[in-house]
Amino acid sequence: MSEAYHQLEQRFARMSAVSGAIAVLGWDHATMMPAGGAGARANQLSTLAVLRHEIMIAPEMSDLLDEAQADAAGLGDWQSANLNEMRHSWTHASAVPADLVEQLSMASSTCEMAWREARANNDFAMLAPLLQELIGLVKQSGEVRGEALGLSTYDALIDQFDPGGRQSQIDPLFAELQGFLPQMLQEITARQSAAEPALTPVGPFPVTEQEKLAHQVMSLLGFDFNHGRLDTSHHPFSGGVPEDSRITTRYDEADFTSGLMGVIHETGHSQYERGLPADWLHQPVGQSRGMTMHESQSLLFEMQAARSPEFVNFVASLIKRTFANAGAACEPDNLLRIYHHVSPGLIRVDADEVTYPLHIILRYRLEQDLIGGALKVTDLPDAWRAGMKDLLGIEPDNDADGCMQDIHWPSGAFGYFPSYTLGALAAAQIFAAAKSDDAAILPGIAKGDFAPLNGWLRQNIHRAASRFSTAHIIERATGKSLSVDAFKAHLEARYLSG
Amino acid sequence: MSEAYHQLEQRFARMSAVSGAIAVLGWDHATMMPAGGAGARANQLSTLAVLRHEIMIAPEMSDLLDEAQADAAGLGDWQSANLNEMRHSWTHASAVPADLVEQLSMASSTCEMAWREARANNDFAMLAPLLQELIGLVKQSGEVRGEALGLSTYDALIDQFDPGGRQSQIDPLFAELQGFLPQMLQEITARQSAAEPALTPVGPFPVTEQEKLAHQVMSLLGFDFNHGRLDTSHHPFSGGVPEDSRITTRYDEADFTSGLMGVIHETGHSQYERGLPADWLHQPVGQSRGMTMHESQSLLFEMQAARSPEFVNFVASLIKRTFANAGAACEPDNLLRIYHHVSPGLIRVDADEVTYPLHIILRYRLEQDLIGGALKVTDLPDAWRAGMKDLLGIEPDNDADGCMQDIHWPSGAFGYFPSYTLGALAAAQIFAAAKSDDAAILPGIAKGDFAPLNGWLRQNIHRAASRFSTAHIIERATGKSLSVDAFKAHLEARYLSG
Repeated sequence: MSEAYHQLEQRFARMSAVSGAIAVLGWDHATMMPAGGAGARANQLSTLAVLRHEIMIAPEMSDLLDEAQADAAGLGDWQSANLNEMRHSWTHASAVPADLVEQLSMASSTCEMAWREARANNDFAMLAPLLQELIGLVKQSGEVRGEALGLSTYDALIDQFDPGGRQSQIDPLFAELQGFLPQMLQEITARQSAAEPALTPVGPFPVTEQEKLAHQVMSLLGFDFNHGRLDTSHHPFSGGVPEDSRITTRYDEADFTSGLMGVIHETGHSQYERGLPADWLHQPVGQSRGMTMHESQSLLFEMQAARSPEFVNFVASLIKRTFANAGAACEPDNLLRIYHHVSPGLIRVDADEVTYPLHIILRYRLEQDLIGGALKVTDLPDAWRAGMKDLLGIEPDNDADGCMQDIHWPSGAFGYFPSYTLGALAAAQIFAAAKSDDAAILPGIAKGDFAPLNGWLRQNIHRAASRFSTAHIIERATGKSLSVDAFKAHLEARYLSG
Repeated sequence: MSEAYHQLEQRFARMSAVSGAIAVLGWDHATMMPAGGAGARANQLSTLAVLRHEIMIAPEMSDLLDEAQADAAGLGDWQSANLNEMRHSWTHASAVPADLVEQLSMASSTCEMAWREARANNDFAMLAPLLQELIGLVKQSGEVRGEALGLSTYDALIDQFDPGGRQSQIDPLFAELQGFLPQMLQEITARQSAAEPALTPVGPFPVTEQEKLAHQVMSLLGFDFNHGRLDTSHHPFSGGVPEDSRITTRYDEADFTSGLMGVIHETGHSQYERGLPADWLHQPVGQSRGMTMHESQSLLFEMQAARSPEFVNFVASLIKRTFANAGAACEPDNLLRIYHHVSPGLIRVDADEVTYPLHIILRYRLEQDLIGGALKVTDLPDAWRAGMKDLLGIEPDNDADGCMQDIHWPSGAFGYFPSYTLGALAAAQIFAAAKSDDAAILPGIAKGDFAPLNGWLRQNIHRAASRFSTAHIIERATGKSLSVDAFKAHLEARYLSG
């Protein structure tokens, strides 16, 4: 191992420690911090981000990377992959000049603040000029990253969130989804409206009892409370660091069903982080592979495992034990009706797994046109409504429930949306492979024992961390490259068979 | 304002933001973090401490300080004082060579870990060699700091915790205390043992109810929950940052009395931080003045204001409303008996305000001898017992309750102890001055209204931050230099009059 490589490891370990501090402070911001602490916290977070960036773009870095590369023959496989990841993240960071970093940071925080107000007042005209300016800067950032990485502008944007994610891979997958989903959606809704409607569980379901249930379920799913916590926040998320995983949810006393699934979703994210290889946790190669892989793990838990009849049947007994007043609505059959209910809606985050990809396809189309210049920001509301009509057959009567519903664009995140649906495809494909590899997985889930599933995921997905590309990890784990097949088969089996 | 001064402000603001991050992460460590997160957290904290240190000892700093000094005529009073504080903290930080910083950090964390085990097993022999090594390094650190600051070794150690604190000021104050306290203690205990004994409140006092009471009392004391929180931790402390004050306590379901006073003590610390001048919060001159001033604020709240008959009488009604089962033990007279009970004991943190200074004098003597070499570590247990006998008339039958009771020395903190008693003297002197300046203060406290007291403290103590020395702030606020008089008068009035 060369001295240059050794020095790089030390520098990246430092950045990782700063990132860990940022993650915990971000968690605190969302869960614990009193409102009056916001100014000081913003200051702490931006200072740590600057310090981390300065370590990354230190003048010696380029030479160190070159020297380590020249000596790469002496590196082991993981070290070699680590060096590649180091260069990849350094290339992203060093591609963007300091003044553009600064402008982007200011424009996105201004735009995000304006978005909160604009959405509350359904006032797209207020947001439009700020969003237009932000898109111009995001495009520049994509261009300079693209030049440095040898990628198109949009691919370079995707690559920030999902390293290796490319439009050329996404296009055919999304075209295929668009080819069958609208028709399938009609069949499913026709079938469901002909069947017995779901009973709504009648609360109240006290928060303390929901918390107790969440803790129980998380433990069954393998969450280790010696290395993590569950708390509440306005928007659920999975944060912290692999050794100290902080997940959050929110509770609705009138309805426990969505809070419970939220916890299971975040537990999937957390299990991925916890399963990363301990020896490489503080190096780039030891980090989770990107948003597609991350979302595959949360959706595998939530959509594949936890909404299976096997698990719903099992969890119904826990629910009945927790809520004495649960009644017939919490019988397994009714819970399945609730958890398998499909209906086109306006809001992405409330969407079921059948309609969700259509929401994503809309955003994927529109953000390419916004970045490429084919769509002007002022025309976005119309384009949104037309797209919703086309893909989901419904359209919003206001922009707050339309093109202003998501935080992603106003915060500067273009290229992020596709990973949600790529993750859903991967979740179906990985879960199918896991069940076929290990016959104990599904019977385990049926009795609340996730050890076989977790064991398989650790071995085949988590431990790979960033040692291989997303595409390669999926191929190794499932024997096939990522396709729509398993997802389609899953939807047919769940919603159209029997 | 020179460019050099401007640059220094930017660098110190950065260090302040990193310190803020460290403070919040430290709070999380004590209150929220699952045990398995300890390794990652230690890594985050030490990385941030190193980054902060690197900003401080950057090669340009010496020149920047000199240039700013050369141009100091153009600075305002606060800027000028800020520049002095910058140089003072830079001199401390740059005096200690990197290898000694590293050795001290390792030796103190090793020694602190060993101490936990040694204390649990009452095994001083296990601790002794590690403590001996640590003392050697602390002494070196004091020597190099002393050279850089023009101070004796021990003064340089004190100066880390209490800038401007000097042995020459402490010696006569402590001699005076030692002159009257043992005799006064005898008189008080004789008097109290002849009087009616206090009834013990009989619980249980549920934690949730104690928390509710604590929140109520904190609000009365002026704590702003938009800028702070109360949580629980093993050892109560006041942490966070001025804009986001995090205080903690611990609850005993069998006894609410000490948890309540703990909360009041930490609220005093917090009010000081919250009262610092908003414009200077992120500069050295805007920080709290040091441990003596800090302890004066917590003890003013706890010992002077909250244990006054006026406040105890008021709080008794809140207590009775909170705990339906409180009974006669929670009548004002009995609560006063509890809160004014004096008795020599082995443990400093459990001591009343009369015996507390004697515990400090013992430590003050012994740590000077340990640093100076007059006392060998192996002789510490005997010296401790002899000192306890001499000062308090009792001695421990084991070292866990003797020389191993405090974390300070095993963590490398020599020169810290005197500030507890200097703070107690200052609290008495400041409270007396406040009451005499503003006749509304005591009647306010009697009805749970701390606004007059808080207003006076903001004006006369908090807003001064580090603009002046501790001695100067006390003199400005009270018209006299710090003496034993007010403390002595306070003890006589509370324990020997009427």
